[in-house]
Amino acid sequence: MITTLNDDQAYELLKTAQVGRLGCIVNGEPYITPINYKLEDNCIYSHSLAGLKIIALRKNPRACIQVDEIESDLRWSSVLGFGKFEEITQPSERRNILSQLLKRFPMLTPVESAIAEDGSSPEVIVFRIRLERVTGRAEG
Amino acid sequence: MITTLNDDQAYELLKTAQVGRLGCIVNGEPYITPINYKLEDNCIYSHSLAGLKIIALRKNPRACIQVDEIESDLRWSSVLGFGKFEEITQPSERRNILSQLLKRFPMLTPVESAIAEDGSSPEVIVFRIRLERVTGRAEG
Repeated sequence: MITTLNDDQAYELLKTAQVGRLGCIVNGEPYITPINYKLEDNCIYSHSLAGLKIIALRKNPRACIQVDEIESDLRWSSVLGFGKFEEITQPSERRNILSQLLKRFPMLTPVESAIAEDGSSPEVIVFRIRLERVTGRAEG
Repeated sequence: MITTLNDDQAYELLKTAQVGRLGCIVNGEPYITPINYKLEDNCIYSHSLAGLKIIALRKNPRACIQVDEIESDLRWSSVLGFGKFEEITQPSERRNILSQLLKRFPMLTPVESAIAEDGSSPEVIVFRIRLERVTGRAEG
């Protein structure tokens, strides 16, 4: 039986998941990239190399984050959070967020390993997705 | 060093991945759901329960599929394919695709387990995403 997660359950999965898929709209098309992130105060904090996705998010800040946990065909949960992209440019806030992200992720996913090569280059974009609503479903 | 995948490499990952994330645009916002699928002739074949996503894809058929394979921080690949949603309504074609999907996925992900409960209900939507272009990156 598939059930709907309440907000607490949905946020719990967003808090514990290691990889999320960030969705945005690039040139009128949906676009997805895997990201590592940290959830805090109903915001997804993450970072990215400058590029297509960031250029698009600056124009159209609507974004979503999808996470799931699939143990088996009868035991899974999936959450989708919707919100608005906000770039973080204040240097000390950037540093603080980057340091928290790197603490949380000693094992890096694609985005982070690319950034690691770049060190503290100005091309590293730090951002939050301010979540406005979440939906979630689960079975088992 | 991050490299760009050529089309053959990108399609190879699309062929072998077990779970993809389908992206579409729902009420002007990006929307992501995990799906099982089968790649054939540059098309992603999948199925879904009727709902928000399908209603939106009927209005705006632009879609993407994202897959990745993350072995470690230094060894990963990620592919994004863009294309157009097409609903498959012809009964024998529907049956054929559903049977191929169920053969490929004895272990079900969220979407499929929901569908399994529903059996051959008319609410099961069968569709393809006709891929127009793919992009991919890898490290390691």
